[in-house]
Amino acid sequence: MSKIAILGFGTVGSGTVEVFCKNKSNYCKNTGKNLDIKYILDIRDFPESPYADKFIKDFNVIVNDPEVTVVAELIGGKTFAYDCVKRALEAGKSVVTSNKELVATKGAELLRIAAEHNVNFFFEASVGGGIPIIRPLQQCLMSDEITSIAGILNGTTNYILTKMLKEGAEFAEVLAKAQELGYAESDPEADVGGGDACRKICILASLIFGEHIYPEDVYTEGITSITKEDAEYAANWGGVIKLIASAQKFGDCLEIVVCPCFVPVESQLSGVDDVFNAILVKGTATGEVVFYGRGAGKYPTASAVVADILNAVRNESKNIIWKEKGKESCVVDYEKQKHRFYLRANADKTKISGLFGDVSFLARQNAPESETAFITPEISREELNEKCKNMNVLGKIQIMYAFDEERT
Amino acid sequence: MSKIAILGFGTVGSGTVEVFCKNKSNYCKNTGKNLDIKYILDIRDFPESPYADKFIKDFNVIVNDPEVTVVAELIGGKTFAYDCVKRALEAGKSVVTSNKELVATKGAELLRIAAEHNVNFFFEASVGGGIPIIRPLQQCLMSDEITSIAGILNGTTNYILTKMLKEGAEFAEVLAKAQELGYAESDPEADVGGGDACRKICILASLIFGEHIYPEDVYTEGITSITKEDAEYAANWGGVIKLIASAQKFGDCLEIVVCPCFVPVESQLSGVDDVFNAILVKGTATGEVVFYGRGAGKYPTASAVVADILNAVRNESKNIIWKEKGKESCVVDYEKQKHRFYLRANADKTKISGLFGDVSFLARQNAPESETAFITPEISREELNEKCKNMNVLGKIQIMYAFDEERT
Repeated sequence: MSKIAILGFGTVGSGTVEVFCKNKSNYCKNTGKNLDIKYILDIRDFPESPYADKFIKDFNVIVNDPEVTVVAELIGGKTFAYDCVKRALEAGKSVVTSNKELVATKGAELLRIAAEHNVNFFFEASVGGGIPIIRPLQQCLMSDEITSIAGILNGTTNYILTKMLKEGAEFAEVLAKAQELGYAESDPEADVGGGDACRKICILASLIFGEHIYPEDVYTEGITSITKEDAEYAANWGGVIKLIASAQKFGDCLEIVVCPCFVPVESQLSGVDDVFNAILVKGTATGEVVFYGRGAGKYPTASAVVADILNAVRNESKNIIWKEKGKESCVVDYEKQKHRFYLRANADKTKISGLFGDVSFLARQNAPESETAFITPEISREELNEKCKNMNVLGKIQIMYAFDEERT
Repeated sequence: MSKIAILGFGTVGSGTVEVFCKNKSNYCKNTGKNLDIKYILDIRDFPESPYADKFIKDFNVIVNDPEVTVVAELIGGKTFAYDCVKRALEAGKSVVTSNKELVATKGAELLRIAAEHNVNFFFEASVGGGIPIIRPLQQCLMSDEITSIAGILNGTTNYILTKMLKEGAEFAEVLAKAQELGYAESDPEADVGGGDACRKICILASLIFGEHIYPEDVYTEGITSITKEDAEYAANWGGVIKLIASAQKFGDCLEIVVCPCFVPVESQLSGVDDVFNAILVKGTATGEVVFYGRGAGKYPTASAVVADILNAVRNESKNIIWKEKGKESCVVDYEKQKHRFYLRANADKTKISGLFGDVSFLARQNAPESETAFITPEISREELNEKCKNMNVLGKIQIMYAFDEERT
């Protein structure tokens, strides 16, 4: 007897119930257990729902019911959701969640509590929606030394950047259209500001690094200042602009960042368009592996949640373990790291060459004479900002570093 | 105490020993077990090897040693390898293998024997080299109904096709170069004839269908008749030529095939070049997911073998189960299925329109006047071959069906 409780009947919660109920007989056959959803916790009433008899409003009912072995937390946020997850784990119930904010901020603690109570805490759906990434990292790629991960982890910003590039539209108008289509929230800050991608790369980085990496330690830059002119220069350079979240190990240190990047067309990430996500993992022995798919959406995310539920029911996979953060952060100061940058400024080429040395100039049609765009040599953000102080900078975007080349 | 035996010290075998020994202390820490390679079985002598003291020539030593809990079969073929795997499983040892021929022909039987003896039989490395695909299908996507899989599963043919397209070279010269570079065997038949890809799609199809699909039931066509002219027409059509292995469920039936296809540039498979592999999986809830990486090679394959060894040591994942084949094959007669085709022939447009109805003609530079190339409407291979009887056909390639559209 394995009964499941669903917390939250929003988009992912209702999708999870639908996917589960549609395939329930298969799941029972394959796990050899009599599985069912016993409770759905939501503050709202759903009298018309076919699952109306399962709704409850008191979480204590779930915690105190010994029949419930797996709890799926699909509420979001880190206050009530955190409290529920912690209490469920302490009550000896496995928990699965799609809540990236919760995992990115409280993951180490919740994994420790799960281990102490010999239950599972799974969160495959928290990164990449329906794309299998956490379990493959944990179970397939753990034989190798994973040195870096870079991904397009936010569908909303990728949709916006794709439209800007392909239709020559401006950021504000594409954002408005994305909101109309339901791809972007009415408050789009977490998406366009990079915060959502930041939480996801923290989860992936914690996995490969074995130590909790917290969002506040990550240099994060969104896409709000990107213009269609920048996209034109990216094309001239031989690439596209993508919001890249990346983490790279250097010995005991970790370089982690979320920022828009010029991505060369040769990269497998350059062809990832619209709301799709992709994650590029590099291992010493395995080389490059890419996982691609729908990074969000009701059913893709729900199918990942249900897969976690089934894995928790089987209770055959051990939890991931990552340590809580030590006294000294392993995250290097991103603004001191050297990268190449695209810059667009009102400045003449002589001045730019004088300031930056050996740069490559870019061109676009109908550019005003006063505008110069170029790619810098390797330079830290700190130095770059210093050099830009006396320049009228119109655009500034990092070049995604080549994962094929060793960096120093 | 978990000791490991390696069978075969060829490319994958020696890579497996290297990867394992390099990371051994991590593996011991992470599994909490005192892991080591105890034996390496090979008929050859390696007196200079740093592992010289581990070599043995008698498999009985391994079977009779109770310390050995995991055997990695990296010999290949289905005679001696089959015998070893069967005996190891019967002796209560888990087995991991990269041997696609063995899994594609004996998988159901070996999985049954493993289940009977409560041990694991894992074969992540048999498909896609270092790309995690079998475990993600089994553990992440099993919550969903997987309706189709299509992949570029053979690196050698993909390298040849990429060179033909990008450099306008002929098949024979590229094959010779691939052999020189070590990308192709001196007997390239299994690669260029499609047999290798066929074994791999059989393994994936068996996984999603739950019933063993055997290579002899699969319509298989290689790339030996592809010319650079066909590649030019593919470009004119808006795509590339790839050797596609695919399996698609229709209720209780399965359509499975290996053949060169025109793949549209919009497809995630079109940009998979050189020796890389990619597998596109489509599920009802998940939508499209793509797995991309190095489908072969010493270290990528070895890292997948080692991951399987570690999973077997932990003994926490259940085996996949697929039934042995029933009396009636579920595989539909591929030559009766309707698809669209590219045809190149010495025939005039009037005759072609008369024979095929509504076709789309293609063009290429410097084509002889007598040559006509076009895309047919949906037609079965049987009908197509009948219509082609009285035509001088120069090229014939299937159009990859759109995975986004429902087919009837």
